[in-house]
Amino acid sequence: MKAALLAIGDEIVGGMTVDTNSAWIAGELRAIGIEPAAGFSVADDGDAIVRALGRALEEADVVISTGGLGPTSDDLTTACAARFAGVPLDLDEESLRSIEERFRARGIEMPPSNRKQAMLPRGAEIVRNPTGTAPGYILPVEVGGRTRHVIGFPGVPREMRRMMRETVLPWLAARNPGRRFLSRTFSTFGLNESRLGELLDGVAAPDEARLAFRAAFPRVQARLTVDGAPGDNLEARLDALELRVRERLGAYLYATGDEGMEETVGRLLREQGQTLAVAESCTGGRIGDRITDVPGSSDYFLMGAATYSDEAKQTLLGVSARTLATHGAVSTGTAEEMAAGIRRLAGATLGLSTTGIAGPGGGTAEKPVGTVCIGLAWEGGAWSHRFDLGDRGREWVKGLTAQLALDVVRRRLLGIEGVVEWR
Amino acid sequence: MKAALLAIGDEIVGGMTVDTNSAWIAGELRAIGIEPAAGFSVADDGDAIVRALGRALEEADVVISTGGLGPTSDDLTTACAARFAGVPLDLDEESLRSIEERFRARGIEMPPSNRKQAMLPRGAEIVRNPTGTAPGYILPVEVGGRTRHVIGFPGVPREMRRMMRETVLPWLAARNPGRRFLSRTFSTFGLNESRLGELLDGVAAPDEARLAFRAAFPRVQARLTVDGAPGDNLEARLDALELRVRERLGAYLYATGDEGMEETVGRLLREQGQTLAVAESCTGGRIGDRITDVPGSSDYFLMGAATYSDEAKQTLLGVSARTLATHGAVSTGTAEEMAAGIRRLAGATLGLSTTGIAGPGGGTAEKPVGTVCIGLAWEGGAWSHRFDLGDRGREWVKGLTAQLALDVVRRRLLGIEGVVEWR
Repeated sequence: MKAALLAIGDEIVGGMTVDTNSAWIAGELRAIGIEPAAGFSVADDGDAIVRALGRALEEADVVISTGGLGPTSDDLTTACAARFAGVPLDLDEESLRSIEERFRARGIEMPPSNRKQAMLPRGAEIVRNPTGTAPGYILPVEVGGRTRHVIGFPGVPREMRRMMRETVLPWLAARNPGRRFLSRTFSTFGLNESRLGELLDGVAAPDEARLAFRAAFPRVQARLTVDGAPGDNLEARLDALELRVRERLGAYLYATGDEGMEETVGRLLREQGQTLAVAESCTGGRIGDRITDVPGSSDYFLMGAATYSDEAKQTLLGVSARTLATHGAVSTGTAEEMAAGIRRLAGATLGLSTTGIAGPGGGTAEKPVGTVCIGLAWEGGAWSHRFDLGDRGREWVKGLTAQLALDVVRRRLLGIEGVVEWR
Repeated sequence: MKAALLAIGDEIVGGMTVDTNSAWIAGELRAIGIEPAAGFSVADDGDAIVRALGRALEEADVVISTGGLGPTSDDLTTACAARFAGVPLDLDEESLRSIEERFRARGIEMPPSNRKQAMLPRGAEIVRNPTGTAPGYILPVEVGGRTRHVIGFPGVPREMRRMMRETVLPWLAARNPGRRFLSRTFSTFGLNESRLGELLDGVAAPDEARLAFRAAFPRVQARLTVDGAPGDNLEARLDALELRVRERLGAYLYATGDEGMEETVGRLLREQGQTLAVAESCTGGRIGDRITDVPGSSDYFLMGAATYSDEAKQTLLGVSARTLATHGAVSTGTAEEMAAGIRRLAGATLGLSTTGIAGPGGGTAEKPVGTVCIGLAWEGGAWSHRFDLGDRGREWVKGLTAQLALDVVRRRLLGIEGVVEWR
């Protein structure tokens, strides 16, 4: 079975939004053995959308479109899908009730324009949207004497992904009776994609598993996909492969699956009954934000402090004026005192700190933009390290520093020596 | 003049790589008045590439393809472009010399396979690649009795961008004597897309401007695009339209352009010579992180504190045990004392605070998940407000609370009464 992807919207074609939906959907399709054959993007233009649907179904058995399901006048996808299939739009009472209910739950009346989202092509299978107003649909169309399908989905990634996972991927897998596919993802930190590729070169024979890589800064993931006939024990084969992967990746592998570093660290803190406090200078709150993205993090995250100024470092964390004067705010000495200070202030078992130059200003010859010091303090000891990350933009320095700092905690909790030397 | 974009490669269609080239090129094209009309992506498959070139030139005068110019057997773009145009490939001596030179500079001999990159379609204008081996080209083709163009470019973003900027964009601009386009974006907070659409309904006549919407939670943007002949004063027309937009949107409009709320707030703080400190409970550091995403924010952001626990609220911020006992950690009273406490601690002119229940646990009948209190303190006064945001996930509650809190500061600095009542 072949699929084509269609991204709809002025903002996609005009380049205001990068289309990340298509790549995500393509990856999910491959995992269930469906080949993504081609991709299309069109503006909010009815004739262009109808032409694109036709072209997509010349290349594939099913076209999955995202976007253009909103309530406004520039949302044309559903009307175009119906026009392409030669069917009228009918009001779907259940969708209307569900949209009204969403508004009612928020204490307001549904704006009249949202009624449009419940007008769906006759003959379509409706796909409920548990997190948004726009339902999706699977619409059969006759093309070249065969039944093909137009799938219309909202463009909001969060809504689209959940609806795909819960409804359409199983629907497609059931209609794709051949091979079964199973994937396992390995999340690493500290390797670039080429280095990860080298380390995993030959980890599985070509007929054992397919290996793919994905870089989503600052983590890089490898994914192994095995396939077999229905009834094959694919889990067991992945378990065996995972042992080889673990051996090759060592400390770079921080999680099996999609887990973020903040989840790994949170899990380890909880398992070991430890607590954490964080003093952030150049990361400005990023670490605290990431840690508290994890439900239940209040059990082990006691306090965060964003101490941008020297005064804050002194008065709040007790960094000594002498350290600041002798070594500067961006120094291993300051990082250690910050970590010890926040640990003491919060009464945590571990104190973590960052101080660095995120740019664009503030760099010097000795400490250019990208110079970052990370500190860690525990009962009776402290550690710090200077990283020279280079200048690839403020956002990059902040993001990488937060990840390095979380990795420092992970390595400490696991008793792993050394740090990632980023290059 | 209309352009279509074509991304070529198994890794694009298969979703291993997100196609960021197309969005970048589309933005550059719009800036010189060329309308990106449609996008296509195809795998490394000769017939599919030729079909895609044909479809692209049904939609546009020029197709810009990226990828498939490498030396390996799966790089098919140039051969397909020649096949589509009905011309042979000729060896371009200058390109060959330049490729050989690149290898020589690295101390190695050119592998024979790279000779392929110098085989270019007869009649094409060659575009030198100063940072890689693959040259690009602009190939004229006759389609429907008119000369159109296939532009073939490497897929490596760094190489492609430089070649576009230095060569093809000026070439296209010189050949685009027709309409000029200009857009302006309006960033709002506190409206959903339907409500924004209603407020802006009819703000411009259909022949005056085109209106598009984009929701990127928690902000919603509207964009007006005007077009005219070269020499028309499009800026002035947008200025006139902007006055109407401002009148209709009032306090919901927080910025013209793509500015984030943290940039707006930073700009206002700087203009008014004010400073800010933030005490975050349920947002865990998100507000500090966002504020410090802005270069130069150390000038006005003095301190952040993530005080998750009651103890931290008391010892660090001086929230009274009585307030906590009587009203609870999630209460307007606690929010006000947190804001006053962090303001005092940091010596800032403004103190901002958040305390709430982000979920999934922790909700009660009286204070369900999504109950959030925001506090603000200034010289001689304080303010707080309880928001009932509803439970749409931890990430959603955190993100919305951070945006609401920044908006509270914005409204205070602008003297705007009231808050966004999110529903």
